[in-house]
Amino acid sequence: MNAYHQLETRFRRIGALEQAISVLHWDAAAIMPAGGAAARAEQLATLRFLAHQQLIQPELGDLLAEAELESDALDEWRSANLREISRRRLHAAAVPGTLVEAESRACSECEALWRKARSENDFAAVLPALEQVLRLQREIAAIKACRLGKSPYEALLDQYEPDESTETIDRLFDELACFLPDLLEAALARQAALPPTLIPAGPFPVEVQRRVGISLMERIGFDFSHGRLDVSAHPFCGGIPDDVRITTRYDETDFARALMGVLHETGHALYQRGLPVAWRLQPVGRARGMAIHESQSLLLEMQVCRSRAFLTFAAPILREAFGGDGPGWDAEALYQRQIRVQRSLIRVDADEVTYPAHVILRYRLERAMIAGDLVPADLPGAWAEGLRRLLGVAPANDREGCLQDIHWYDGVWGYFPTYTLGALIAAQLFEAARGAIPDVLDAVAAGEFAPLLLWLREQVHSKGSLLSTAELIERVTGRSLGTGSFERHLRNRYLG
Amino acid sequence: MNAYHQLETRFRRIGALEQAISVLHWDAAAIMPAGGAAARAEQLATLRFLAHQQLIQPELGDLLAEAELESDALDEWRSANLREISRRRLHAAAVPGTLVEAESRACSECEALWRKARSENDFAAVLPALEQVLRLQREIAAIKACRLGKSPYEALLDQYEPDESTETIDRLFDELACFLPDLLEAALARQAALPPTLIPAGPFPVEVQRRVGISLMERIGFDFSHGRLDVSAHPFCGGIPDDVRITTRYDETDFARALMGVLHETGHALYQRGLPVAWRLQPVGRARGMAIHESQSLLLEMQVCRSRAFLTFAAPILREAFGGDGPGWDAEALYQRQIRVQRSLIRVDADEVTYPAHVILRYRLERAMIAGDLVPADLPGAWAEGLRRLLGVAPANDREGCLQDIHWYDGVWGYFPTYTLGALIAAQLFEAARGAIPDVLDAVAAGEFAPLLLWLREQVHSKGSLLSTAELIERVTGRSLGTGSFERHLRNRYLG
Repeated sequence: MNAYHQLETRFRRIGALEQAISVLHWDAAAIMPAGGAAARAEQLATLRFLAHQQLIQPELGDLLAEAELESDALDEWRSANLREISRRRLHAAAVPGTLVEAESRACSECEALWRKARSENDFAAVLPALEQVLRLQREIAAIKACRLGKSPYEALLDQYEPDESTETIDRLFDELACFLPDLLEAALARQAALPPTLIPAGPFPVEVQRRVGISLMERIGFDFSHGRLDVSAHPFCGGIPDDVRITTRYDETDFARALMGVLHETGHALYQRGLPVAWRLQPVGRARGMAIHESQSLLLEMQVCRSRAFLTFAAPILREAFGGDGPGWDAEALYQRQIRVQRSLIRVDADEVTYPAHVILRYRLERAMIAGDLVPADLPGAWAEGLRRLLGVAPANDREGCLQDIHWYDGVWGYFPTYTLGALIAAQLFEAARGAIPDVLDAVAAGEFAPLLLWLREQVHSKGSLLSTAELIERVTGRSLGTGSFERHLRNRYLG
Repeated sequence: MNAYHQLETRFRRIGALEQAISVLHWDAAAIMPAGGAAARAEQLATLRFLAHQQLIQPELGDLLAEAELESDALDEWRSANLREISRRRLHAAAVPGTLVEAESRACSECEALWRKARSENDFAAVLPALEQVLRLQREIAAIKACRLGKSPYEALLDQYEPDESTETIDRLFDELACFLPDLLEAALARQAALPPTLIPAGPFPVEVQRRVGISLMERIGFDFSHGRLDVSAHPFCGGIPDDVRITTRYDETDFARALMGVLHETGHALYQRGLPVAWRLQPVGRARGMAIHESQSLLLEMQVCRSRAFLTFAAPILREAFGGDGPGWDAEALYQRQIRVQRSLIRVDADEVTYPAHVILRYRLERAMIAGDLVPADLPGAWAEGLRRLLGVAPANDREGCLQDIHWYDGVWGYFPTYTLGALIAAQLFEAARGAIPDVLDAVAAGEFAPLLLWLREQVHSKGSLLSTAELIERVTGRSLGTGSFERHLRNRYLG
């Protein structure tokens, strides 16, 4: 067996181990009783330590060196797999196993404290744990920066969005900052001039919401023999390609919130499920990065399911399921409700016009903290000041401010920019989809999702990590990532 | 750090890895969509391979040798832990890692085929996979037999019930065979002379059954912040001590089936939960063996919850929950129903008088298969003939015969005797409990389970694997395991 094939064999084992981690992580977030947290933290730390141990074995380094010498003989996929294997090795070898375990434990512990601190609006209670997480993140960032030849922040970012640079992000975010404030003003003014949005009155029983969600998921192409829909405090898409686990949370006074959440996670799920079967446990078979991942959820939620076309299709289904009656259940009323714009405090509830401001705030703050220019104790003040400058509002308390997101407390640093990169990619991809399938929105209005799904599978999902994010976007849309499609989309929907 | 402490450190990691396996196994049986099976088989095979790798590391052998030299300095618990570590190492080192992986995969595959074969009553469809599982089991049995100085069958048995011998089992089972047939005849005759049992008519909604189950579990002492109750095709108790996952299956025409199943699994769960906290991830902190485990489920189900006392307490709760009315809901009628005796085909539905016959049949058949005296192709015939001789009935098809149990198809060989050993231990322990707490059944009738639970925790649960099964029984009951208590219990309940 040649060196490359031996690497594949080793990575099948690493891949299976990482899938186990993913399922256990889902379980902890979705169904685990609270009393299981300490034991689970230990299990996850151990599995991560073992995965890391597999990645840093000296023989793996030798095989990699040997395989790189023979790499001319590899086809496109194997060659890309070798590149991804090398990336994985580089990241892993930078960090000692003891630090991997310490980080896993610190994050599990801080995340548990954060849950309580958030519900009790008590930032001080979680501050020491957050400081410890940040210390470990800065340590990891510093040593990865050396090995990767990047800045510490970019070294963390690279874990979620390979090869992305702060230079590109700064340029794109600056472009957004140029047109978004005026666009928001104009959208709010236009909205104020319209008759008030009609909102159907509840209650909307959870069981009915669940049934509607499942039936729309199936209609769009989610296969329940390879996945589940459950409930969790913080909706997400977890699991593995052959067993995708998405979660949501229900609000009996508002069916649209859970529904749009479910459709968002379904976008993630279809991407995960559509990853190349032949490369299941290999690095090249994995999602390209979190920006592309988010683009798939936002393409489905924002571009497709908040469109007039989708709500034309969905209105009778919703009306019948909930026994709805009256003008609030018309497709146009449901649509107007889905495109409400508002300066608000909570990122996950934000509309697509104000969402980038939330992301830019977090991006600035986490960069400052990784650089050592901002300490966690000063976070509440910096948050309020930053949001006021970006969006003109400020939180009255930390629960609506720096306690609202799980990321930093759970050790996820350098991730936030991918949300807005995802929004930009979604808009650019959907423009390309409409170019390739001119009647795609007519199909959606008729409840036909297959043409779009097939296109996404072929162009994006089945590519796994074959190409870089930049190459993938360029190949599918014919140009590099910009803000143009996103701006056109917003102008068309909110000012059109 | 001395050798013993280094062993503890290593076993914390192995323990956490085995806990992860346990949670993933529960997920597969309880909630995983069918399409996740192949990936899960790969995950489990990988984790088992890694756990095995940790166990066979040469340095672990060196530490063990060194720790054994210093063992005089260890206290009772550490000394017992060292003995259990040595047992674990002995079992693991006997088998190469490739065989561990091959067995894990073969069992996952065979188990999946069995599910289908059972529902379609098609033994031939699973026969080749079963033959493969048996081949691997015989291979494992042969090499473990050499290392452990036992017979091949005893080497497998030792995995579930350490230090048990076929000599003891044969003696106990022969004693049972002496009195059970006549006792069964007499019980059936007595039952036939009684007025027919009144059975409340359904339907009994699943949600109500679930609520009643949960409320009785809580009353008995199950803590839902450390566990869950879910649904699975084959009810079991899984998870880990701090997060116990039990499952059941509901039948809307018969509430008692799920309820008694839930109470049975609650017995397992309380044992798991009561294992010594200070030794969580160490071998000495684990359940002593499957016979003691089963004794805890049968003590709760058979000795306690099928008693007149329990049904006196439960009758008004059941009546109110299901809106029941009439004489079928009286405590005495509910009790009579729970002690119905019948010659039947399905082990899991069998009453406690006929259950041993089912176990003896499987024990004989699996010993013959491991010895090479019976091939799987001849299993259906041998099954029918064996059951006819033991119980006077024979299955009309394989679904009611050799396809009914998951064990052999899932690679669990040498396990069956522990069910009946568990029944004997349960009876002997409960006699001791009644000696120690004379009014224990009065307390049960009043819905007070704390006195019994405290006694079980102190005498059994908290001991983990400190003592051998034989020592534990002797210490708690004052004598070695026999059939006397079980016979007295049956005569008292069924002929009294």
